[in-house]
Amino acid sequence: MIKARITVTLKNGVLDPQGKAIEHALDGLGFAGVGSVRQGKVFDIEVDGTDRAKAEADLKAMCDKLLANTVIENYSVAIT
Amino acid sequence: MIKARITVTLKNGVLDPQGKAIEHALDGLGFAGVGSVRQGKVFDIEVDGTDRAKAEADLKAMCDKLLANTVIENYSVAIT
Repeated sequence: MIKARITVTLKNGVLDPQGKAIEHALDGLGFAGVGSVRQGKVFDIEVDGTDRAKAEADLKAMCDKLLANTVIENYSVAIT
Repeated sequence: MIKARITVTLKNGVLDPQGKAIEHALDGLGFAGVGSVRQGKVFDIEVDGTDRAKAEADLKAMCDKLLANTVIENYSVAIT
């Protein structure tokens, strides 16, 4: 059993209205000095097997096919 | 300017229908051996100042007040 964490974040330059909303909400709550907020997604996935290289290749394929929109998002795979 | 990454994940035992849906979708795409999928959120935040200890305390307060629902979610703050 291999455990991995996939982090999907918006590419630089892609507008993030959700992040902007959080920024304004934090400001409204009295947190001064919050520069920018960008929201992303994280997936904790368990994969059968012990071959880390194969698991990493599979996880990258999952990102390309389903978990990330590679037009506007970056992803990183970390085997834990 | 301090950059931090906040990761918010569901606590163990809390049902994650979104993760389950992803699990089934991955299975349908032909990825065998996917054990479990849990989805969480990630926030990349920039905070003014250079005091890392203060920034970390502020970021934890942001999590408690806005970014995480501590009844069902855990969070971790990593200053990068």
